[in-house]
Amino acid sequence: MNAKERYIVGVDLGGTNIVAGAMPVDGSREIAMSTTQTLAEGGAGAVVDRIAAMIDKVIAQTMAETGASRSAFLGVGIGSPGPLNRDKGIVIITPNLGWKNFPLRDEISSRVKLEATLDNDANCATLGEFWCGAAKGGRNVIGMTLGTGIGGGLILDGKLFHGASDVAGEIGHTTIDSTGRRCKCGNYGCLEAYASGPAIAERAREALRGDEGESILVGMVEGDARKITAATVYEAAKRGDITAREVVRETARFLGAGVANLLNIFNPDTVVLAGGVTQAGDALFQPLRAEVKRRAFKPAVQACRIVPGALPLSAGVVGAIAAFKQQKLGEL
Amino acid sequence: MNAKERYIVGVDLGGTNIVAGAMPVDGSREIAMSTTQTLAEGGAGAVVDRIAAMIDKVIAQTMAETGASRSAFLGVGIGSPGPLNRDKGIVIITPNLGWKNFPLRDEISSRVKLEATLDNDANCATLGEFWCGAAKGGRNVIGMTLGTGIGGGLILDGKLFHGASDVAGEIGHTTIDSTGRRCKCGNYGCLEAYASGPAIAERAREALRGDEGESILVGMVEGDARKITAATVYEAAKRGDITAREVVRETARFLGAGVANLLNIFNPDTVVLAGGVTQAGDALFQPLRAEVKRRAFKPAVQACRIVPGALPLSAGVVGAIAAFKQQKLGEL
Repeated sequence: MNAKERYIVGVDLGGTNIVAGAMPVDGSREIAMSTTQTLAEGGAGAVVDRIAAMIDKVIAQTMAETGASRSAFLGVGIGSPGPLNRDKGIVIITPNLGWKNFPLRDEISSRVKLEATLDNDANCATLGEFWCGAAKGGRNVIGMTLGTGIGGGLILDGKLFHGASDVAGEIGHTTIDSTGRRCKCGNYGCLEAYASGPAIAERAREALRGDEGESILVGMVEGDARKITAATVYEAAKRGDITAREVVRETARFLGAGVANLLNIFNPDTVVLAGGVTQAGDALFQPLRAEVKRRAFKPAVQACRIVPGALPLSAGVVGAIAAFKQQKLGEL
Repeated sequence: MNAKERYIVGVDLGGTNIVAGAMPVDGSREIAMSTTQTLAEGGAGAVVDRIAAMIDKVIAQTMAETGASRSAFLGVGIGSPGPLNRDKGIVIITPNLGWKNFPLRDEISSRVKLEATLDNDANCATLGEFWCGAAKGGRNVIGMTLGTGIGGGLILDGKLFHGASDVAGEIGHTTIDSTGRRCKCGNYGCLEAYASGPAIAERAREALRGDEGESILVGMVEGDARKITAATVYEAAKRGDITAREVVRETARFLGAGVANLLNIFNPDTVVLAGGVTQAGDALFQPLRAEVKRRAFKPAVQACRIVPGALPLSAGVVGAIAAFKQQKLGEL
């Protein structure tokens, strides 16, 4: 315990869950990290109530654990789905939460009587891995979160890059097949339309047409192909299922094309991949790295590590705390 | 004339031509801009001779025009094809010039007795448009040079972005069709394999197969389809040729997919396109902008101008001068 230690609270708001916790300003450890359901259908006010209650709980628990006083808390970093207006602290629109032009930062700030900052959730996840996780020591880091969608964050020359209007980093919506699969965003051939969790499941269902009998996939989900998820596909591949293995190989190929693009564009030192899809581990990373090596320029390949995230549960919170620190204290 | 004015010399080294000139440190005007052939087949020593002679001529002419003394020249910025090692001033490899690990910066510097800096040619072209051309006033600028190849440069938060090992910005080698056309770089479906000058000509030749009789294209090149260039295609399209028009439309579609990717990744305020292919003007830019609008996120589209370069002959030299200034004087 250190009477002079100062703390920042972090909140990672998602469509399904809210995660919150605290860290000392030096990022040395996570304190009072916990999760609760978002229950977005209750409306923005109810979600703000829930977030404020979590922050109070995090502060109380941190005080109890460390002996700190309430004045030791500098503020709250918030990560939220976007697009956002960071300057104004406004969530412009989030289909998952059903919000439009919601002043999330100031709502939270006035409730908990602390300064707050707002940044994009995928940016925060990348910044978290950069500050305390798998991308530590890097300087040019591209982060991707592979889940229901594919989010991205860019750390360039040691700082989060936001672009002209705070919407940079939409890596999931880069075209890898210009006449390919329709994406939910309206574009064709987006990386997300191939390598997100639902896209992997969909490609598995397509692969099954005509040879259901030879694959164990449908049997694994009580005979209902609609229940196949990316996790089912990776599990079946692990058990040797030929159809599933082909889907896994193709996923690595699509992802490899997307990641190779990032290497040729950014020449990063680290690409960190997190999210549910990456739980496949080496079954994903090995063919992915091989595909990137086939596609990208050699000097870019040599300069870059492609690694799984090290903070699967807390990267978003850690990064929201880091974003607060970078914005308010000017450094990390 | 201003006795206190200081000057920087710029050199833009290409596989075919060398361009050189000078500017006052404030970038207010171009002085003594001229071009000579590279004649790379004479070897690196002969090319260095030719560059040194051009620099001497530029200095002499600038002194004559402005009344400046030789001590008014701060140094030489050099733009060269890459990949490079900027720190060491070495050209690692350039297939067009046939060089390997050539210490270009120091060779020039010792010959002309001035400090020198080295940066990638596409980076310099982008920086030139940012400092004095079509991207002036921007802060996040993506530059593309569409010619024999497709080069790219990234200006992020007001500075050239080089990546972890100086090879960032290879926009031409981003995959837009992961199972598509083979690219010279070894990858499949690179933007360059569709929208470089030679790729446009090649797609026109393919489009002609089976309907040569209905197109004016072959007649325009003395009956020898191998002589078709991108310029031929755009000229034929202007005259109403249906085959050529389809090739032009498709070029805009491919380029649009590539540029839309850049908008979703970077959220830039400006994309500036230069090089021979962009001489097509509105015939290229109008369908290109429409395609980008169809593909990219609306906030990214709204934030971004897509414009032709304003310094078709001198962007590389102006940018090499700007790169020298940014590296040696710390600002632009």
